[in-house]
Amino acid sequence: MGKDVADLIVGVLGGTGDQGRGLAYRLAAAGNPVIIGSRSAERAQAAAAELGRGVRGMANADAARESDVVIVAVPWEGHRDLLASLAGPLAGKVVIDCVNPLGFDKRGCYPLPVLAGSAAEQAAEVLPDSQVVGAFHHVSAVVLLDPEVTTVDLDVMVLGEDREATDLVQALAGRIPGIRGVYAGRLRNCGQVEALTANFVSINRRYKAHAGLRVTDI
Amino acid sequence: MGKDVADLIVGVLGGTGDQGRGLAYRLAAAGNPVIIGSRSAERAQAAAAELGRGVRGMANADAARESDVVIVAVPWEGHRDLLASLAGPLAGKVVIDCVNPLGFDKRGCYPLPVLAGSAAEQAAEVLPDSQVVGAFHHVSAVVLLDPEVTTVDLDVMVLGEDREATDLVQALAGRIPGIRGVYAGRLRNCGQVEALTANFVSINRRYKAHAGLRVTDI
Repeated sequence: MGKDVADLIVGVLGGTGDQGRGLAYRLAAAGNPVIIGSRSAERAQAAAAELGRGVRGMANADAARESDVVIVAVPWEGHRDLLASLAGPLAGKVVIDCVNPLGFDKRGCYPLPVLAGSAAEQAAEVLPDSQVVGAFHHVSAVVLLDPEVTTVDLDVMVLGEDREATDLVQALAGRIPGIRGVYAGRLRNCGQVEALTANFVSINRRYKAHAGLRVTDI
Repeated sequence: MGKDVADLIVGVLGGTGDQGRGLAYRLAAAGNPVIIGSRSAERAQAAAAELGRGVRGMANADAARESDVVIVAVPWEGHRDLLASLAGPLAGKVVIDCVNPLGFDKRGCYPLPVLAGSAAEQAAEVLPDSQVVGAFHHVSAVVLLDPEVTTVDLDVMVLGEDREATDLVQALAGRIPGIRGVYAGRLRNCGQVEALTANFVSINRRYKAHAGLRVTDI
């Protein structure tokens, strides 16, 4: 890739949602050029204008094309179709999937069954020419978007098959003050990391918190 | 149950394995009466004698019968059959399942598919008259058995359907210095907590560590 991680243009597909806006906000605050992608260029531009810090907004395909590295923060429904449609512009790039396939019912939150094993593995299936990395699953959008939170108390688990790609995503995560990127295994071990978000929902409900995790002894 | 958590007799089925011995050692050190169970009463007694601190050893069925609360630390193979055979002596008791259904191959560790969703849910299926709680999945046997480690840097995720039972297991976990029991959801969210152990295996390999987790913001 050649560029320093600080200079990478980061695209955020589904960047008008809470998780996407939160990551866009923090990475732009860290100094990276950021592009929000959305189905609607107008909505992307509106969200970008609200975030400020030079964030730009485009349709998803343009955001994918213009970015060096792309975060996928889209709803689980439509995840496969959207990524399959962007396989061209995403080819040769590191694609960071942070999608959590979750359901909600009156008993709370639970992981949805995923045929591919995980959202990240589904992304890898439809993006054979990209390096798919799983990361940023447990970030709290509320915390990321709160301008009074200057340090985010969180380790981001980073999963993937390619060392160069996971190293890059760890470095990108580490640009957000307080966040540490931790290598946590291959993509086949991403399903439980995504699903663990359901446990954080349970924890948040019980303890009235915005819980995250830290890995000890490293 | 009536008894104070400090007075509970804790049985550890499969207590001759590393995880079981580690938990037996720490809970006995905390002052609880502990009984190690094993298929062979002789092997249980030998392991108990090695641990000292008043730990006793018995055949699994006797350990189940004599204990107030029972930790299941048996190998995943045989988990269902052993527990089904102990449904009588375990009736009316809190049963703590800490089994991780994992496979290993040359690419590392990965979660095995579990028909019931998780080991804990499988336990609940065959123990309809017990209160099954999932906990202690991420404890490092190496750390637990190291007498030089006086404080264990770990949150134990505690999952279950019954508030009284999960409160009790949180309190029991909290008797080990450094460990905090954290409620982390219903049993249907236990599969990913068990599977997450595969990620800790990956982390341990990459960072040469005995990693655990802490939940932030609570």
